[in-house]
Amino acid sequence: MITKEIEITKTANPELQATVQSRLDNLTKPPGSLGRLEAFAMQYCLCRGDADAKIPRKSLKIFAGDHGITAQGVAPFPKEVTVQMVHNMLGGGAAVVVMCKAAGVDYRVIDMGVDGDFDSHDLLVCKKVNRGTQSFHSDCAMSREECDSALSAGIEIALKEESDITAVGEMGIGNTSSASALYALLLGVDGTSTVGMGTGAVGELYERKCRVIDEAVNFHRENWDGSPVDALRRVGGFEIAAMTGYIIGCAQKRIPVVIDGFIATASALCAVKMEPMVLDYLFFGHVSDEQFHRSVLDSLGVKPILELGMRLGEGTGAVLAMQIIEQALNCYHDMATFASAGVSEK
Amino acid sequence: MITKEIEITKTANPELQATVQSRLDNLTKPPGSLGRLEAFAMQYCLCRGDADAKIPRKSLKIFAGDHGITAQGVAPFPKEVTVQMVHNMLGGGAAVVVMCKAAGVDYRVIDMGVDGDFDSHDLLVCKKVNRGTQSFHSDCAMSREECDSALSAGIEIALKEESDITAVGEMGIGNTSSASALYALLLGVDGTSTVGMGTGAVGELYERKCRVIDEAVNFHRENWDGSPVDALRRVGGFEIAAMTGYIIGCAQKRIPVVIDGFIATASALCAVKMEPMVLDYLFFGHVSDEQFHRSVLDSLGVKPILELGMRLGEGTGAVLAMQIIEQALNCYHDMATFASAGVSEK
Repeated sequence: MITKEIEITKTANPELQATVQSRLDNLTKPPGSLGRLEAFAMQYCLCRGDADAKIPRKSLKIFAGDHGITAQGVAPFPKEVTVQMVHNMLGGGAAVVVMCKAAGVDYRVIDMGVDGDFDSHDLLVCKKVNRGTQSFHSDCAMSREECDSALSAGIEIALKEESDITAVGEMGIGNTSSASALYALLLGVDGTSTVGMGTGAVGELYERKCRVIDEAVNFHRENWDGSPVDALRRVGGFEIAAMTGYIIGCAQKRIPVVIDGFIATASALCAVKMEPMVLDYLFFGHVSDEQFHRSVLDSLGVKPILELGMRLGEGTGAVLAMQIIEQALNCYHDMATFASAGVSEK
Repeated sequence: MITKEIEITKTANPELQATVQSRLDNLTKPPGSLGRLEAFAMQYCLCRGDADAKIPRKSLKIFAGDHGITAQGVAPFPKEVTVQMVHNMLGGGAAVVVMCKAAGVDYRVIDMGVDGDFDSHDLLVCKKVNRGTQSFHSDCAMSREECDSALSAGIEIALKEESDITAVGEMGIGNTSSASALYALLLGVDGTSTVGMGTGAVGELYERKCRVIDEAVNFHRENWDGSPVDALRRVGGFEIAAMTGYIIGCAQKRIPVVIDGFIATASALCAVKMEPMVLDYLFFGHVSDEQFHRSVLDSLGVKPILELGMRLGEGTGAVLAMQIIEQALNCYHDMATFASAGVSEK
């Protein structure tokens, strides 16, 4: 088992919680009036195990991979767009990169399995497992070895991570199909109910996507061993497996992870199914416009930070949410107390 | 009439809209996949009347004033907290100031009617109309002259405004009571239905607040002339009237205004009732935890950017929302196009 050496520390700590709460309540504001920002500061400190925890270093990892399922015609964009968009990320033209630069977030693109070659680049980490997965329509997306390699690569990157908060995003034409199939298996629902428009599947294309996912899920459900790893291997993707490993590894290192949208949440769900205590280390950045995402967040019992109708992926929602979490910590550390500012209490 | 010389330019402009939409659709993302961020970029460009509009300069104006209604025991904090919190803002210890510094927002505190004296300070603008309003329980909060002065001061500050986007926040113990009464008059609803906990009115205090507002609204409703200015004079506050003027003046200058929470929205409602075209220039930063706020936003037909359970005021929700709007414009300007990045289209 790939995660056998992983041990996640429980974040619950009544003493630390009381210390943080007391600080929050002494800040010059009515108690609780910063709403969820106070909860973000609390969760962050509990994750770090430190009432003085700050966020000097923020990072985003964008995991990229290609998907054999695109051969079934489930995506409106050609699969070449994956490699093109990796170039666009390295060149600074992708949405998430624009956002990272403005927000001071250190980003890296991890090639987990793009069907293309890249020159070496400061912002690119090559962990290519294969040039795209097999179509999971009637075969497994990955071999056991490939799936283990992808998971391990994610964990390995996490164990070297040096930021104080991190986020995950992805790029991979066809990966909403993988995420939908994962949700169907892991949550035990119909394949069709988990399918959304992805990058723009409407009309006939949407119907085909539904049919393909439904057939694939029915095919795999029969032989699935019930584990998240086997689900990943059957219908996942290299980038989805690597994100799963990265999330688990970051939780082990007590680095909170901001989860992006529909696809990143599939990795989060796999990670939580593998190691339930991981959940305490996660912030859910936004609820995607991809229709089934809200149901998944509900099933995890979590509330997204933002709801802006976004459905781009890449980590865009996570980066925006990270700015909010950062402001929550700024308030926690830099606001005056009633005593220091000479402000009267109730 | 105080706003007789004001002329608001219609933002609707089909040609400009088509230009902006075409740029948005050529960016390297599925069309519409940045969700409301695309709408923010569109609204911003339409407000500025410029498809190339950027946001180099962001500002926040925090309007402060005291309220005679506090004599009726409607707020859990003593009224001295208004002057203390102005000092705290100038000293850098208030939540909104911490947020502004991190977000690169230029902020100023405007003393519209605080019952206290301040030494001169770079960040403080003195426009004091009086040392607090009269209690509006059974009298008008302001004289006609005072209300006109406060409105004019707001307009005057706006006409000197040089930022590319601005936000409004406030400080004034008792001002949720004023806002509740304004909503009751302007929206024709029961006083009690508009009352929330403010800075923390619960139990007996909450019941007293409801009773006081209800009595005051019933008293004023009889003689109210139906105009927003008369409503402001009767139950408003110096800072609420000044924000109203500032919003109108900024709209005239085509500077978009990000509205904060429950109290700032009362000013926005007054401004829109005075000059309906103002609405196009407004972004509603967040929905407050103050219960009636959502109903007001619904009645204006607008959707808040954030929903984080905040109820602090000062401009805190508006500053967070401004960071999102800024990222929307960053994407609009700095993302590559399909052509420039060599990314295949659908």
